[in-house]
Amino acid sequence: MTTGVRRRMGVEERRRQLIGVALELFSQRSPDDVSIDEIAASAGISRPLVYHYFPGKLSLYEAALRRAAEDLAERFTEPRQGPLGARLLRVMGRFFDFVEEHGPGFSALMRGGPAAGSSAASALVEGVREAAKVQILSHLDAQDPPPRLELVVRSWVSLAESTALIWLEDRAVPRAELELKLVGDFAALVAVAAAQDPGMAGVLGRLLAEEHGTGPLHTLLGSLSAFTAPRDTEGGADGVDRTGGEAAVGGVSARGGVDAEDATAEGASL
Amino acid sequence: MTTGVRRRMGVEERRRQLIGVALELFSQRSPDDVSIDEIAASAGISRPLVYHYFPGKLSLYEAALRRAAEDLAERFTEPRQGPLGARLLRVMGRFFDFVEEHGPGFSALMRGGPAAGSSAASALVEGVREAAKVQILSHLDAQDPPPRLELVVRSWVSLAESTALIWLEDRAVPRAELELKLVGDFAALVAVAAAQDPGMAGVLGRLLAEEHGTGPLHTLLGSLSAFTAPRDTEGGADGVDRTGGEAAVGGVSARGGVDAEDATAEGASL
Repeated sequence: MTTGVRRRMGVEERRRQLIGVALELFSQRSPDDVSIDEIAASAGISRPLVYHYFPGKLSLYEAALRRAAEDLAERFTEPRQGPLGARLLRVMGRFFDFVEEHGPGFSALMRGGPAAGSSAASALVEGVREAAKVQILSHLDAQDPPPRLELVVRSWVSLAESTALIWLEDRAVPRAELELKLVGDFAALVAVAAAQDPGMAGVLGRLLAEEHGTGPLHTLLGSLSAFTAPRDTEGGADGVDRTGGEAAVGGVSARGGVDAEDATAEGASL
Repeated sequence: MTTGVRRRMGVEERRRQLIGVALELFSQRSPDDVSIDEIAASAGISRPLVYHYFPGKLSLYEAALRRAAEDLAERFTEPRQGPLGARLLRVMGRFFDFVEEHGPGFSALMRGGPAAGSSAASALVEGVREAAKVQILSHLDAQDPPPRLELVVRSWVSLAESTALIWLEDRAVPRAELELKLVGDFAALVAVAAAQDPGMAGVLGRLLAEEHGTGPLHTLLGSLSAFTAPRDTEGGADGVDRTGGEAAVGGVSARGGVDAEDATAEGASL
């Protein structure tokens, strides 16, 4: 009996080890380019033994994907404390940590990797998106969200995915700037929906309610106010005050770092 | 010689017919659920004859996808006349026409259909995204776009895709509202990037330059100004004026239809 229990433990441990080895290799190269031989060599076991634990590469890939999906979904959990913008910014930091850690494996999956057509892989990806949506809605105290709010949250999740994928290509824009951008994007998408629907205006109010003049959303909206402030509509094609827009970015450094205090000092107050 | 030419023409015609039949069936049910037998029956030919023109279902699916991709890419072409917001709104109308016409086929492809893992299908989808990006950049007169602009355009394209996919699920929000929302989303994403980067502020200026107080972006930004206008930062957690936000949506009907004239009359001027 005792050996039986120990043997079962051994199987689970070996599977965990192989999943870890696979994820490590998938973080360096696309899963398409990683062979079972390499996984066996990295794990220090024979190729047939890998097949003993996983009947094929797809089953190992799906198991690795499952662990990565659980890992990512956990990173969405955030204490319900402080301004919503700051909470979302911390989640974005952990999301980009994940993206950076998994690099090629993340890209391959989202762009259509070896198991992209498999229903198990699709279900795992959808499960992570659902987890992200549920977390955001819970922070907005929207357990039974109206269709427009659900749409904004879900489409923003896809925006975060595509932003991360584009970042991975050449990292041309610093990730800290993109993390902040996605927080701003979320508020902006809610704001656009609020301009169309009174119900969404209440959500926007909740999103901004605890910014206290220092949160990331405060700074962003301060900058935007230069563009949206009432102007003379008779100005024609040149009615847009580009100077005002340029001045508004004064509180935001060209590096993408935002100094909320500076923005406040410059009158970009909310 | 003449018959040879005619036979070749006949092959192309038959292939076109089968592609048309397949697209028609894929617009009603997911390609996964459409058999070669059905396609043969709808085309009025035998199953072996279908295989004569297309060696397998995947090759017929990919040919159908190619035609649909060309069709969609053509709909992005828009004369370089009038405000950019109005141009983008017309493109969104044609995009949703396409989405509505192809329904289940579009969903299946974008969510991981039978050929989703095929490199030909991925390349076709990427080609359409690229065509959309090139069109938008050309309207912004940005032939050699900086990384931040390229990122905003590409990530917005993915936002348009996901918005259309969510709409197809239950059509809970009217498509006209979503077409307008996506135009506003584009401006909003540019605006968020403009708050981080001086170069993007110039793009935002160009986007708004020809709105003349009547375009869809004008109305949107007018509504947003109520949220972004300077307020007393000493107000603490309740410093956000929800009433002001609610009032701002006055120029926008709850149905999602926007009356630019009304918005102007109500002082939501740019």
